Amino acid sequence: MHEKCGVVGISLEDRSAARPLYYSLYALQHRGQESAGIVTHDGFQQHSHVEMGLVGDVFDEDDLAQLNGSNGIGHVRYPTAGSVNACCAQPFSVSFKSGSLGLSHNGNLVNTPDIRSELADLGHAFTSDGDTEVIAHDLARNLLESDLVRAVKRTMNRIHGSYSLTIMHDDTVLGVRDPQGNRPLCIGDLGDGYVLASESAAIDTLDGELVRDVQPGELVVLHPDGTGYDTYQLVDADSTAHCFFEHVYFARPDSNIDEKLVYDVRRELGRKLYEENGIDTDVVLPVPDSGRAFASGYADAAQDAGADVDFAEGLMKNRYVGRTFIMPTQDERERAVRLKLNPIKNTVEGKSVTLIDDSIVRGTTSTQLVQLMRDAGAEEVHVRIGAPPIIAPCYMGIDMASREELIAADKSIEEIREEIKADSLSYLSIDAIADALDSTRGDLCLGCVTGEYPYDIEDEATDREVNRPTIEPSPADD
Amino acid sequence: MHEKCGVVGISLEDRSAARPLYYSLYALQHRGQESAGIVTHDGFQQHSHVEMGLVGDVFDEDDLAQLNGSNGIGHVRYPTAGSVNACCAQPFSVSFKSGSLGLSHNGNLVNTPDIRSELADLGHAFTSDGDTEVIAHDLARNLLESDLVRAVKRTMNRIHGSYSLTIMHDDTVLGVRDPQGNRPLCIGDLGDGYVLASESAAIDTLDGELVRDVQPGELVVLHPDGTGYDTYQLVDADSTAHCFFEHVYFARPDSNIDEKLVYDVRRELGRKLYEENGIDTDVVLPVPDSGRAFASGYADAAQDAGADVDFAEGLMKNRYVGRTFIMPTQDERERAVRLKLNPIKNTVEGKSVTLIDDSIVRGTTSTQLVQLMRDAGAEEVHVRIGAPPIIAPCYMGIDMASREELIAADKSIEEIREEIKADSLSYLSIDAIADALDSTRGDLCLGCVTGEYPYDIEDEATDREVNRPTIEPSPADD
Amino acid sequence: MHEKCGVVGISLEDRSAARPLYYSLYALQHRGQESAGIVTHDGFQQHSHVEMGLVGDVFDEDDLAQLNGSNGIGHVRYPTAGSVNACCAQPFSVSFKSGSLGLSHNGNLVNTPDIRSELADLGHAFTSDGDTEVIAHDLARNLLESDLVRAVKRTMNRIHGSYSLTIMHDDTVLGVRDPQGNRPLCIGDLGDGYVLASESAAIDTLDGELVRDVQPGELVVLHPDGTGYDTYQLVDADSTAHCFFEHVYFARPDSNIDEKLVYDVRRELGRKLYEENGIDTDVVLPVPDSGRAFASGYADAAQDAGADVDFAEGLMKNRYVGRTFIMPTQDERERAVRLKLNPIKNTVEGKSVTLIDDSIVRGTTSTQLVQLMRDAGAEEVHVRIGAPPIIAPCYMGIDMASREELIAADKSIEEIREEIKADSLSYLSIDAIADALDSTRGDLCLGCVTGEYPYDIEDEATDREVNRPTIEPSPADD
Amino acid sequence: MHEKCGVVGISLEDRSAARPLYYSLYALQHRGQESAGIVTHDGFQQHSHVEMGLVGDVFDEDDLAQLNGSNGIGHVRYPTAGSVNACCAQPFSVSFKSGSLGLSHNGNLVNTPDIRSELADLGHAFTSDGDTEVIAHDLARNLLESDLVRAVKRTMNRIHGSYSLTIMHDDTVLGVRDPQGNRPLCIGDLGDGYVLASESAAIDTLDGELVRDVQPGELVVLHPDGTGYDTYQLVDADSTAHCFFEHVYFARPDSNIDEKLVYDVRRELGRKLYEENGIDTDVVLPVPDSGRAFASGYADAAQDAGADVDFAEGLMKNRYVGRTFIMPTQDERERAVRLKLNPIKNTVEGKSVTLIDDSIVRGTTSTQLVQLMRDAGAEEVHVRIGAPPIIAPCYMGIDMASREELIAADKSIEEIREEIKADSLSYLSIDAIADALDSTRGDLCLGCVTGEYPYDIEDEATDREVNRPTIEPSPADD
Repeated sequence: MHEKCGVVGISLEDRSAARPLYYSLYALQHRGQESAGIVTHDGFQQHSHVEMGLVGDVFDEDDLAQLNGSNGIGHVRYPTAGSVNACCAQPFSVSFKSGSLGLSHNGNLVNTPDIRSELADLGHAFTSDGDTEVIAHDLARNLLESDLVRAVKRTMNRIHGSYSLTIMHDDTVLGVRDPQGNRPLCIGDLGDGYVLASESAAIDTLDGELVRDVQPGELVVLHPDGTGYDTYQLVDADSTAHCFFEHVYFARPDSNIDEKLVYDVRRELGRKLYEENGIDTDVVLPVPDSGRAFASGYADAAQDAGADVDFAEGLMKNRYVGRTFIMPTQDERERAVRLKLNPIKNTVEGKSVTLIDDSIVRGTTSTQLVQLMRDAGAEEVHVRIGAPPIIAPCYMGIDMASREELIAADKSIEEIREEIKADSLSYLSIDAIADALDSTRGDLCLGCVTGEYPYDIEDEATDREVNRPTIEPSPADD
Repeated sequence: MHEKCGVVGISLEDRSAARPLYYSLYALQHRGQESAGIVTHDGFQQHSHVEMGLVGDVFDEDDLAQLNGSNGIGHVRYPTAGSVNACCAQPFSVSFKSGSLGLSHNGNLVNTPDIRSELADLGHAFTSDGDTEVIAHDLARNLLESDLVRAVKRTMNRIHGSYSLTIMHDDTVLGVRDPQGNRPLCIGDLGDGYVLASESAAIDTLDGELVRDVQPGELVVLHPDGTGYDTYQLVDADSTAHCFFEHVYFARPDSNIDEKLVYDVRRELGRKLYEENGIDTDVVLPVPDSGRAFASGYADAAQDAGADVDFAEGLMKNRYVGRTFIMPTQDERERAVRLKLNPIKNTVEGKSVTLIDDSIVRGTTSTQLVQLMRDAGAEEVHVRIGAPPIIAPCYMGIDMASREELIAADKSIEEIREEIKADSLSYLSIDAIADALDSTRGDLCLGCVTGEYPYDIEDEATDREVNRPTIEPSPADD
Repeated sequence: MHEKCGVVGISLEDRSAARPLYYSLYALQHRGQESAGIVTHDGFQQHSHVEMGLVGDVFDEDDLAQLNGSNGIGHVRYPTAGSVNACCAQPFSVSFKSGSLGLSHNGNLVNTPDIRSELADLGHAFTSDGDTEVIAHDLARNLLESDLVRAVKRTMNRIHGSYSLTIMHDDTVLGVRDPQGNRPLCIGDLGDGYVLASESAAIDTLDGELVRDVQPGELVVLHPDGTGYDTYQLVDADSTAHCFFEHVYFARPDSNIDEKLVYDVRRELGRKLYEENGIDTDVVLPVPDSGRAFASGYADAAQDAGADVDFAEGLMKNRYVGRTFIMPTQDERERAVRLKLNPIKNTVEGKSVTLIDDSIVRGTTSTQLVQLMRDAGAEEVHVRIGAPPIIAPCYMGIDMASREELIAADKSIEEIREEIKADSLSYLSIDAIADALDSTRGDLCLGCVTGEYPYDIEDEATDREVNRPTIEPSPADD
Repeated sequence: MHEKCGVVGISLEDRSAARPLYYSLYALQHRGQESAGIVTHDGFQQHSHVEMGLVGDVFDEDDLAQLNGSNGIGHVRYPTAGSVNACCAQPFSVSFKSGSLGLSHNGNLVNTPDIRSELADLGHAFTSDGDTEVIAHDLARNLLESDLVRAVKRTMNRIHGSYSLTIMHDDTVLGVRDPQGNRPLCIGDLGDGYVLASESAAIDTLDGELVRDVQPGELVVLHPDGTGYDTYQLVDADSTAHCFFEHVYFARPDSNIDEKLVYDVRRELGRKLYEENGIDTDVVLPVPDSGRAFASGYADAAQDAGADVDFAEGLMKNRYVGRTFIMPTQDERERAVRLKLNPIKNTVEGKSVTLIDDSIVRGTTSTQLVQLMRDAGAEEVHVRIGAPPIIAPCYMGIDMASREELIAADKSIEEIREEIKADSLSYLSIDAIADALDSTRGDLCLGCVTGEYPYDIEDEATDREVNRPTIEPSPADD
């Protein structure tokens, strides 16, 4: 149920929304490769095309041509183990008494079973296990009795967890961000309309201008005629719980999230990594592509400090990796990493090397990379990681791994260093993360590096209270 | 929304239901080629596999392997113009307060909008436009308050129209037939379990024994352990409205429907066709494959009457027709019929010929066949049809054509004869149909040949009262 | 290497040949389902589209559109065990010094290795193991030194075995039939051009007129402008070796082969089957579809003899059989036959039954059918076969089975009867076959029922001289 | 016919060659995405699997399993306009008198028509238009009369143009490089066997050691038992004609070609680019991925020269680009570049920027990138190119563009600058290329930047004699 997805919603004055939605999803493809979908509304009826697969494979010209209307929403879904299931592809659509609803969801609710059970008591029947259908039913029910804004507010007061949603009620496109702002969502101006998207890079792709982030607890309602939008601060929380991992790994470097350019944050984290635990070696190598910005900041800080360090591309990535591929047999397994990453011998041979990566999850790749360096003749191999150790699973929508798989869940840093066979290993501190994000620990979701979550998670210890905010319904409520 | 489909449900003692369901659907493939699906229940949870395509393409060994459980239902769906839509493939599944439901539906409701609207008022949201989802929601709602039998009865008292349903409530498989018994449904004994199926040929395929037809208004509940079944006569109607077209065209000749073997009925209709309007020609030719049984009966009757008539296969069918095929251009159009049916010249040349077919819908094929006969040297071409003229559309679940397309909707038999350029043309009488089925006009649905329907159809004249029964809830009801 | 295929060649005055070729292949689809191909020539260059699959799947509108030119040839290839190999799909094309060649081949050479070896000595290199490439190379080599007719004659004098070929040399379409006329080939007049095809049903499909069979040893050269054709009797043999199995089983009933309508031959064989070994039972049932014409003739003969026998369709065929299908498990195996053929109980129950089929190869289907009849209540089951026992493999291009698989290879008729558990079993005599074809044993290939072949077959006994003709090059040769 | 492909050949002691060949092709995927193929030999017979598509899509486990044998060759083919043609996928296989041949070819012959014509005079027939089939036939013919080494030598003396070949004669794998060494080929040691490959990165992928480049005019014969190899210097040329573009653009940065690491060469070219035409701007941006190494060298040289320049990743690449994709409409065209490359505003805004790319072909991308920079707020945009202007097409196997499409074919550098709207534009000098490669103009193929080719090209001026070598057969020849 952990969904690391991308959402988008568009309202235009006078153009079909289908192509801009398509290009937006293409720009957000890194957030989900399992399924893609677009739902539009032409003023009279919904049109929908949702399928398993990559954006480029799911849609052809005919599909876009039949997605009539200048308002629509889209979704790309992240593949999570065991859930390869066409039924959960989004946007999710239903029609009900007061019209039609389409929903695209990024995030993870923690009280789905409760709400589902309440709705079931009222006679609701569900076609899937997903959060999204539950949100849709709850919202549909509230819309029977309330106007759109009040209905959304009621639903927000009932669902707990992380969510960035784009919603289409008939031909009106909405965007909602959960009260702690765990998952990103932003507004862009397209000149002849507006767009809501998980990341600002999608706005860039449409030659639009980023207006701002949607605020935690805020509802944005795009005018169906593309001329503007209204916003409503529906729920206020004591604190935010922004996911710091969006900046560390998940988002595109060219996206702005919560007023920070991801690329800059990564360079800054790289600088702090040197400042906290820098080591002067002959060469600094990023693990491509994710370690590149960290390494660039790290090398800058080293040079500022007067160190004579060479920032080099010593690992070359095969750009066809990720496509279909026959896995090597057990005794070829070691070779597998060289299909993806090949070391350039003479940038490494006879040298002391610092490898920079964004994070360590299971540790297997790090182990292979250290070995690769040694095979290529590195005299010393030091590893520096641009995030703190990941000690606990994510329940907020990013499917990292289960606790047993996390190398840092039950190992000290020294034990990890031994396992990956590095000469030294350092992680970044949590404070450095908060600093780089101009934030405080209390306003970030640090669940995966502290084990303390912004919401009660079943089976997680309950004495971790640090980040748990009290959510106050804003007074102007019904 | 017209659905000419096949349904099946199976409960076994100790075997997986998936393979028997698969073979049943294979046997019912003629009832629907658009989509196929199976839903099973293993006592703990539902398993579902539903896709667009033919049975043989939809399922592979892995799909059957994951359909765990000894209880399940299946469906094949008929392709109807404009509705090629994955969302409507069945069985339709939902989970709700009291468990899970799966539904396979053959038929067509006439009051879906009303019930949908009532449910929407209660907050229900729908993912499709189909009858089946509406039945599922209504039944789920009734199950909140009633036991299974009462809930089904309540739903039956609310929905009007034709329906044969196989339903799975958790691991219990049910079969229901509408109060007029419009669409077929029968029970079979498999030795180690029971099967419900649209046609008895599916039972034969499983080496089972046909027990009997499910009665109009009857509910059959299979024991989940495969050891037996219970039946409940839930609704009684004044009369039945069996679809005579199942016997004329739609069902397999080797199926028994409402106690009549379809093959025998067709032979008998062929006999009556000769008795009513026989003509003695040199040769009697069936239009393959559907006209074969009629022609056989017709020729028998002719011979019994002392006529010296030769029953021959003068039209050869290309058995690859029906697969993908590039349509001929306009001036090749005429040739199209010869790709499907090629006349054997020397069975026709210089002879007077009687062509026997089951029905005429648009008349285009008949026109082409008469021309084919003349091109092959036939001196006279007489056409005999084993059903009355089709003058009105079907609203009960068979998608024949719209009224404008029906050649008999506004043409006399003589006008039709002129259009198809036959030397003579005769249809069978309605009374002959009733006789052959050992029935009365009042117990058959003759809508397509009389324009008088067993239910009120919007936009159809309301003074046709003949067949409209009063449905009396049976007394032992809540 | 046994290829039971269909070939076609077309030259038109002023129309693209692609569509007529496509429809011809569709009409010949029963001769080969493994691959399909068309090669055309537009006067300047060849165009080719050859793929694995059925005709309807191999070609789309775009494919036909790019197959320019009013001359072309086509091919459908029979799937033979172990040879599912794209490299052997036809037509086979090469370009050489004097232009381009395309070849479509139906048949099987017996001296391929020798010719291949001779050509290899001259430096030829081959991309496949097939007969067709060897014929192409030999013909290309002869065309370096001779005109077209002499080159074909030289190649015909070198290759031994069965072949019906359509060939395209640049834009000239040729047809050649081997000196014994083992495989069929005929000429048709299309009004605005001519067609060569394996069976006359392909000509019918194009609304053409059958002109005549191509004679054994004859070359037909179509004029590229569609205005006519020239013929050359290039090789004369003492006798023919027409394959009787084309008439018994392989060809379409509506085709004329060697001046005999296949349907008439089958009816006549059915008559003779009654005359030789008729038995008067309550009902005569054809095994559909292949046994139908035999049964019709058999029943006629019975009635002429005054027997009171009912000719009925007691076995119903599932018309979806043959498509993709998950095989039953071992203990479901018995059921498999009922997926294909379902008995109509009341035509069988309590009756004595005669089952009519065209041939018995392995005997498994017959065993299952007899059992089916008994399960359906038949009191006696008699089996009558419209061909003699198949005691030896076919080397001439029909892939029946290997000798070990043939039930009649080492069993007497009585032993076979016991194995299939019939009450009686009779085959047709070889003389009846010859009579029905107005031929003599010496002019038929009876290899599969006598073990005596018209050509030396390696590993077959050499004292079988009956059918082996002396081939005399015709005198007017170079 | 321009083929920018990858070739590989492997002989192993005791392991199946299929998987190592598969991984090698995966490593060489950047050299060709149109088709992929592997041919192996198990000592008795060839096994082949060749299909259109990417390596990961062409092969599955079953395909690899049936490619028996410890010797084999592979090929990936570059898609060139108008030639998407399954017939040209490689390796190309033939069998002939003295066994079987398989060929993988990278390069382009200039006298194919002559040799093809000579072979056609001898009776050869060809199934394709390709160079490779002509080489195969010529070699097969020579093998009729000579041993392997002499046969290869004869063929090398007949074919003119660029070629790196891996060849399999029965189970013997050979590698041949043309006398000027235009296309790369190298030998690697796998511990339990040897590998020949277009690039050393393929050897790395197999955990092998690069032994050395195959020399121009050299034949390498791998021992079929994997224990070693023999080499023969078959043809000596006065000069080499190494393609400098392999180092500039085509090869992987982590490959060694002709004793130079591609990554180092690009860094060195970047340094020279600064030294020749450096300009000090606020920031230096590589065009990813190809400009990255150039920009790194350029920035190093700038810093060495004391310039205060920031080397930044200001353009972010969408890593899903290159997959299926619906092209924008005309007025969305501008947007297309932003789907691929998105500028990071704050690394560019208000700054003077130097864009570094490896080459300019048509100029359209450069124009879009300069505009992107200005849209992102760059005050000045300078463009520096790591290669000389491309003024002429490549005839040696790299399909750049036709002469009319090349922006530098008829425009001065100043005119190009105006067209792409840059503030300044500089290319690298030809001498810098030669220096960086430790070579001379006379030993490089500079055809695309000088218009002077190492071989006579039809329709190219004949007075360009600089690079044209005289090829002397080595004395020890037959």
